[in-house]
Amino acid sequence: MHRTPPSATPCHPHVPLDWSVGPHESPDAQPELFVPAEVPGAVQLDWARHHGWDPHTYDENWQQYTGLEDRLWTYRAAFSRPALDADQRLRFRCLGIDYAFTVRCNGVVLLEQEGMFTPVDVDVTDTLRDRNELTVTVHPAPKLAGEPETKLEARQSCKPAVSYGWDWHPRLIPLGIWDDAELVVVHRAAFVETRCTYTLNDRLDRADLSFHAALADEPPHGKVTWRIDDPAGQAVLNVSALVRDGSASTTATLERPALWWPHDHGEQPLYLVTATLEDAGGQTIDRRESRVGFRRVRLVQHPGAWDEPADVLKPRTDPPITLEVNGRRVFAKGTNWVPPEIFPGTITAERYDGLLRLAKQTNFNLLRIWGGGITNKRSFHEKCDELGLMVWNEFPLACNDYFDSPAYLETLDQESRSIVTRLREHPSTVMWCGGNELFNAWSGMTDQSKALRQSNAVCLELDPDVPFIATSPLAGWSHGFYLFRHPETGEEVFEWMRRNAFTAYTEFGVPSASPVEVLHGFLPEGDRFPPRPDSAWTSHHAFNAWHFGDESWLALKSIRHYFGEPESLEQLVAWTQWLQAEGYRFIYEEARRQKPKCSMALNWCFNDCWPCAANNSLVAYPAVPKPALAAVRDACRPTLASARVPRFAWKPGEQIGVELFVLNDAPTATPAAAVTAELRAGDQKLSLGQWDAPPCEPNTNQLGPTLEAVVPAEFVGQGDTLELILTSSTSAVGNNAYRLRLFSVDR
Amino acid sequence: MHRTPPSATPCHPHVPLDWSVGPHESPDAQPELFVPAEVPGAVQLDWARHHGWDPHTYDENWQQYTGLEDRLWTYRAAFSRPALDADQRLRFRCLGIDYAFTVRCNGVVLLEQEGMFTPVDVDVTDTLRDRNELTVTVHPAPKLAGEPETKLEARQSCKPAVSYGWDWHPRLIPLGIWDDAELVVVHRAAFVETRCTYTLNDRLDRADLSFHAALADEPPHGKVTWRIDDPAGQAVLNVSALVRDGSASTTATLERPALWWPHDHGEQPLYLVTATLEDAGGQTIDRRESRVGFRRVRLVQHPGAWDEPADVLKPRTDPPITLEVNGRRVFAKGTNWVPPEIFPGTITAERYDGLLRLAKQTNFNLLRIWGGGITNKRSFHEKCDELGLMVWNEFPLACNDYFDSPAYLETLDQESRSIVTRLREHPSTVMWCGGNELFNAWSGMTDQSKALRQSNAVCLELDPDVPFIATSPLAGWSHGFYLFRHPETGEEVFEWMRRNAFTAYTEFGVPSASPVEVLHGFLPEGDRFPPRPDSAWTSHHAFNAWHFGDESWLALKSIRHYFGEPESLEQLVAWTQWLQAEGYRFIYEEARRQKPKCSMALNWCFNDCWPCAANNSLVAYPAVPKPALAAVRDACRPTLASARVPRFAWKPGEQIGVELFVLNDAPTATPAAAVTAELRAGDQKLSLGQWDAPPCEPNTNQLGPTLEAVVPAEFVGQGDTLELILTSSTSAVGNNAYRLRLFSVDR
Repeated sequence: MHRTPPSATPCHPHVPLDWSVGPHESPDAQPELFVPAEVPGAVQLDWARHHGWDPHTYDENWQQYTGLEDRLWTYRAAFSRPALDADQRLRFRCLGIDYAFTVRCNGVVLLEQEGMFTPVDVDVTDTLRDRNELTVTVHPAPKLAGEPETKLEARQSCKPAVSYGWDWHPRLIPLGIWDDAELVVVHRAAFVETRCTYTLNDRLDRADLSFHAALADEPPHGKVTWRIDDPAGQAVLNVSALVRDGSASTTATLERPALWWPHDHGEQPLYLVTATLEDAGGQTIDRRESRVGFRRVRLVQHPGAWDEPADVLKPRTDPPITLEVNGRRVFAKGTNWVPPEIFPGTITAERYDGLLRLAKQTNFNLLRIWGGGITNKRSFHEKCDELGLMVWNEFPLACNDYFDSPAYLETLDQESRSIVTRLREHPSTVMWCGGNELFNAWSGMTDQSKALRQSNAVCLELDPDVPFIATSPLAGWSHGFYLFRHPETGEEVFEWMRRNAFTAYTEFGVPSASPVEVLHGFLPEGDRFPPRPDSAWTSHHAFNAWHFGDESWLALKSIRHYFGEPESLEQLVAWTQWLQAEGYRFIYEEARRQKPKCSMALNWCFNDCWPCAANNSLVAYPAVPKPALAAVRDACRPTLASARVPRFAWKPGEQIGVELFVLNDAPTATPAAAVTAELRAGDQKLSLGQWDAPPCEPNTNQLGPTLEAVVPAEFVGQGDTLELILTSSTSAVGNNAYRLRLFSVDR
Repeated sequence: MHRTPPSATPCHPHVPLDWSVGPHESPDAQPELFVPAEVPGAVQLDWARHHGWDPHTYDENWQQYTGLEDRLWTYRAAFSRPALDADQRLRFRCLGIDYAFTVRCNGVVLLEQEGMFTPVDVDVTDTLRDRNELTVTVHPAPKLAGEPETKLEARQSCKPAVSYGWDWHPRLIPLGIWDDAELVVVHRAAFVETRCTYTLNDRLDRADLSFHAALADEPPHGKVTWRIDDPAGQAVLNVSALVRDGSASTTATLERPALWWPHDHGEQPLYLVTATLEDAGGQTIDRRESRVGFRRVRLVQHPGAWDEPADVLKPRTDPPITLEVNGRRVFAKGTNWVPPEIFPGTITAERYDGLLRLAKQTNFNLLRIWGGGITNKRSFHEKCDELGLMVWNEFPLACNDYFDSPAYLETLDQESRSIVTRLREHPSTVMWCGGNELFNAWSGMTDQSKALRQSNAVCLELDPDVPFIATSPLAGWSHGFYLFRHPETGEEVFEWMRRNAFTAYTEFGVPSASPVEVLHGFLPEGDRFPPRPDSAWTSHHAFNAWHFGDESWLALKSIRHYFGEPESLEQLVAWTQWLQAEGYRFIYEEARRQKPKCSMALNWCFNDCWPCAANNSLVAYPAVPKPALAAVRDACRPTLASARVPRFAWKPGEQIGVELFVLNDAPTATPAAAVTAELRAGDQKLSLGQWDAPPCEPNTNQLGPTLEAVVPAEFVGQGDTLELILTSSTSAVGNNAYRLRLFSVDR
C-alpha cells in the first residue's frame, strides 16, 4: 500500500518566509503594528499570542477574540531575490487563504480573490527586486449590513456558516492564511495541474484512464510521462504525451486494477501516479505525485423501494440513499464530522490522524463533512483514503437561503470547482452534497435554487461518476431527534426510533457532558458545580444552545427524571454519559435492524471544535473519547447479537420483552449461533432464554424471538443498573450488553 | 402586437426541390422504387399514397403501416446548379429529420446525425455539378434487440416513446423529414445563429439585453445591427457590433419593457428583433427576425408550505410548483398536450392554431407538453406566445429507465441543447422538465440519473431563469386517477378529489367516447353498436388500453352502474360524455377550491392523435370538441360561484348538502354577490337558499355555507337529470350549473 502521502512538488527549492501580520482600518493604510504570524494559522491567534491573551478556549475568553474579524489584516514577509536561471520563475503557492484577500509583491497586485477553498498559484518573478516584500491583505469577514449577529450573515458567501455561531460553536470568525504557503522556484513551464481520472467497466476488471496536464508555459518539445506504481511499488503503466499549447493529454488502460473498499469490506490499495515533465533534452522540469484508488460508487434504491406504495398510481419514489460500492450494498455507519478547531489554520495532519483513527476504531465507514464547516485539508482526505473511511463532502452552505445573486453564484462556482477538482482524486470521496438542511423551513431553498442546480452541474462535469445530492435530509431521511428524552412529550429515543422507518438517519444526537478533565480545563474552579447558566457553562453550550432551553445540551431535566439531583460534577457527568452511551447504542442498532429499508446511520456529531461543556459529540475536545464512543463501536461491529429493548428504565415487577436479532453488515455469512439473553443487577441474574439463530447471509439480518420475563423482585437493592447480556455461542456473532436504568420499586 | 410570426430568412432565393423517397434494405443499396414524397411528411404516408392504401386512421388499417419503420428510406431531389456569386453559398436547411439520417449531395456525405430535434444547416456548394442530387437517407427506427414490442424499445434514444404504442396511440413509428426543408442561396458569411436574451431587474422595469450572432464565415469588416420594434411597430432600440472571429455580440438596456402575461392576467406584447448583417460597404448580407416577450417566471412555494409540518424537526419541504409570473402567483389551469397526429410531419400551423384557440377558449393558461411525444414545431410556440398560453416543455423521455450510456447521453445532450436554444426565445416557455413519470416505479430513474442531471445542467446553462423540474410528478403532486369511478373500490372522482390535498394535479383523466361522427368515421358500419372488443373499438383504445381491462377507456362498467345498458351508440356516447363533463368540471373546480395549497390542474389529455374510440381527451380527432370541453371552460373561468357536491348520483328523499364558494383566480377583486342555489329536475325546482358572499380579494377564494335539503319526492318522474344551479347577483361572479344523475327512488 502507498501509505506515504505523495508529495506535491518534490523537487523545487523554497525561499523561506518569515511572516508577520497586523491590522488596519482602510485598504490603503498600513498596519501600525506587525506581530509575528504563524502560517498556516489565524490572525486572531497571532494577535492574541503577541498580546499574551489567555486561550480562547478558557472560560469566557472567546469574547476577547471577537470583533477582530471586522478589520483588515495584512501579512507580510520579506525575502531576498533568489538566484533564478533563465527558465526559472518564482511562484507563491498557498492552499488556502481565509476569506477575501489581495496578494501583492512589492506593492504590485498579483491576485484578488474571494474564497478560502481555491488555492493560490501566482508568479511573482516580474515584480522582483533585490529585497522584496510579499504581502497578503485579508479583508474583513463577510457580513451582511443590517443583519443580526447570526449565521444569516453567511448567506451570500462561501465562508463556513458555523463561524457565525452555532449550538456547539461560539461566534468566532477566523481570518488568515489557513493552509500551507510557500515561495518556490520552479521552471517557467511548471505544472499548473495534473490529473488522472478513470472509468471502470461494468465488470470492474478494467480501468480506462485519462491523463491530463496543464502547464504554466510552453516548453519547447516538452513531454509529460505518467507512471503508475501498484500498491506493492511495481510500475504497471508508463505513458507519455507531447506538450501542445501548454497542455498534454493521453489515455491508457489498466487491466484488473485492485479495488479500493471501505475498511469493513476490503482493502485500500492505492496506486502511485507520478507525472513527470521533461524538456526536449530529457531533463526533468517538474514532477508531481498523486494516488489513485479504483472504486465505483452509486446511490441505489433499497430493495422493495419500487414496490411501495402498492397502488396503480404511485407517487414519485423517494431518492436513493443506499451506498453501493463496487457493486456491493454497504450499510453506512458513521458520523457527522465538524471542524476540530475553531481556527482551521491550526488543524494539523496529526490532529486529523488521531481523530480519524478513532472513527475507524468505532467501526465507522462513512463521514459526512457537514456543510456548515470547512472543506478539509489534503491530509484529511489522504488519511481517509488510507484508512478506508468513505467521505460525504458538502459544499459550504448550511441552514440559510443562499439566494441567486450573480456575485454569490460566481464565488460558489469557483469554490465548488476548486473543491471538486481537489477531492475527486480521493477514492474516499463517495458523495457530493449541496449543503446542510437547505430544503428545510429554516433555510427556504428549493430544487429551483440556482446555487444547488449549479453545484449539481459542476459535480456532473468534474466528477460525473460520484453521486450528488442537493442537501440532507431529502425525502425519506431523517435529521434528529437530538435529545435522549423529549422534554415536552417525554418520548425517549428508544420509542422514537422504533416508530420511524426512514431510509437513512443522517443526523441524530444524544448529548452528554464532556469528561470531567475537559470541564476542569476551561471552567474556573468556582463555576464547576453545580452548573449555573450565568457562567461559561452557557457559552460552552450546556444551556440554551438550541431548542428546549435548558435541555440543550446538559439535559438536566432528563437527568433528574432518570436519576434525581446530581451530588457532584463527577456524578452528573457520569449520568449524562450513561444516557448518551445507551441512547446512541440503541439508535445505531435500531437503524441496522431496519435494514434493508434503512441503509445509513450517522450521528450528530463526532467531535468538538473547542471544549464544549455538553454536546452531542462522541469525542470531546481536543480528542477525548466519551464513553458513548465504546458503546457505538460495539453497536457498529460488522456482526453482533442485538436486542430491541422497549425502553430505558425499569422497575422490579415489570414485564420486559426483548426482540432478538443477529445483525450482519459484513460481506460474509455468519454461522448458526446459540444466543442466550440474561438480565443482571448486581449479584442477581435471570435467564431470559436462548435462541438458536440460523446462519445469516452476507449483509443480511436475522430476526429472532421476543424473550419475555418479569424484572425480579430480587433485583431490589442491587444498584441502579439493569444489565441485559447477550451471549453468542460463536465469536463470529458478537456478544452484546445493554446498561439500562433500574428504578427502585416505589419510584 | 407583432401578431405576424417573424420570418427566419426573408431575403434568400430558394432552389425548388421535388422530393421522392424509396425503401432499401442495406445502407449501400439504392431503393428499387422511388415514390413521390411530401416534405414535410413521413415515409409511411408517401408509400401508402403511392400504393393507394386506405388511411391509417380507418378501422384496422394502421396494421398495414407497421414494419415500414424497420427499413432504410432514401429521399432524393434533383436540382440544377443555381447561379452563385463569388460570395454566395448554397445551403440545405431542414428543421427536423426523424430520426437518424445521412445527408449527401452527389454522393458526398455532408452530415450524419441521430436526433430529430436538431436542425440541419449544411453547405452543399463544394459538391455541386451542373445537375445535382440531394439525398437524405433515414435509418430504421431505433429499437432494442431482444426487447418486446413495447415502449421499452425507446429507452436509449430521443425518439418519442409514444410511437411505440400507448393507451391512446397505436404502435406506429414515423420516419422521415418532418419539418420544413429548403435549399437556399445565402452569403458565405450568413447567420448560423442570432440570439437576443434578457434579464429583468427586480422591479421588472428594465431589461438588460444581450445580443449574439454567429456566422458561417468571416465577412471583411462586417457589422451586425439589432433593431427592436415595440409591439406598436415603433423602433425602440438600435445597436450594432463589429464581427470578430465569426461572431458579434453586444448589450443594451431597454427601460420599462411592456410585460408579457398569460392571457388571463394581461396582454401579450411581443417585440420584433431584426438582426442585420452588413458588409464593409453597408450591403445587407443576411437578416433574421425573431420576437421577444419580457416576463419573469419562477416556481415558488405555496403560502404556508414552510409551516408544515409544525414540528421542530421538519423533513425536507416538497418542491415548489406554484407559478409566479412577473411577481404574481398564477393558478395554472390547463392540460396535457399530446401530438395531434401520429405522423408529426403532417402537423400544420393551421392544426396548431385551431387546437390552441380551443385551449385558450377553454380558459386554459398552461399546456404541459408531455415528454412521450414530440417537441412541437415553431408555429406552435409562436401561437402560444400570441395567445398567452404558457408552455411546460418536456424533453423526450417518458416511462422508461433512460440509463446512463455515453452514446445516449451524447444524443440527449445534443437534442436538449437544440430544443432549449429554439424554445427559449418564446415567452410562453415557462418550465423545463426532464420527462414524464421518470421517478415512478415503472420507469425506475432517480435523482442520480445522469440524463436528468445533464438536462438540468443544460437548462441552467442555456435558459437559466426558467424553472427546471426533473420529472412529473414530484413529491406533493398527483398523476391520476383516470376513470370517473374506480372499478374495484367504487370510489368516484368527486370523493377522490375531496380526500386529497396535493399541491398540483398535473395529470388526471375522465374518459369518454368520441363523438358519434368521429366513431362513424373509422368504424365499419357493422362494428358500431354494440361495441365489441374483437373490432377496431379495441385498437382504437375502447377496451384494454390501460389498467382495469374493459374500463379503459369506454368504461362500460361505470356506464351500467350509473345508467344501465345503452340502447344505441348515440345513447352510449352521450352517457360517457356526461360522466366526463361532470367529472372534469368537479376536478377543476375542486383543485381551485384547494387553493392556495394547490396551484395547478392539468387534465390528461387535451387532444387525440387519431380517431380514438374512447379516451380521456377533451377534443376528439382531428379537432372536435367533446361536451366536457364546455364544462371545463366554465370551471376554469377566472371568477365563478362553485359548489362542492358530495357525489354524482342522487335519489329523491336523500339529504344533499353543497358547500358554496366564490372562486377568484383573477388579478382583480370580485364585488360582494348574492349567490342562490337551486335544485331542478324537469319542471320541478327547489331552492336551497342564498349566500351573501363578501368580496373576494384578487387571486383568493371565499368559502361560504353548506346549503342542505332533501331531494324532493316531486322530482320522481322528472327525467334522469338533477341540476344544481348557482345564480350570482353580479356578472362579476359567474353563475354555475351541475348536471347530476337522478336515480329513480327504487334503484
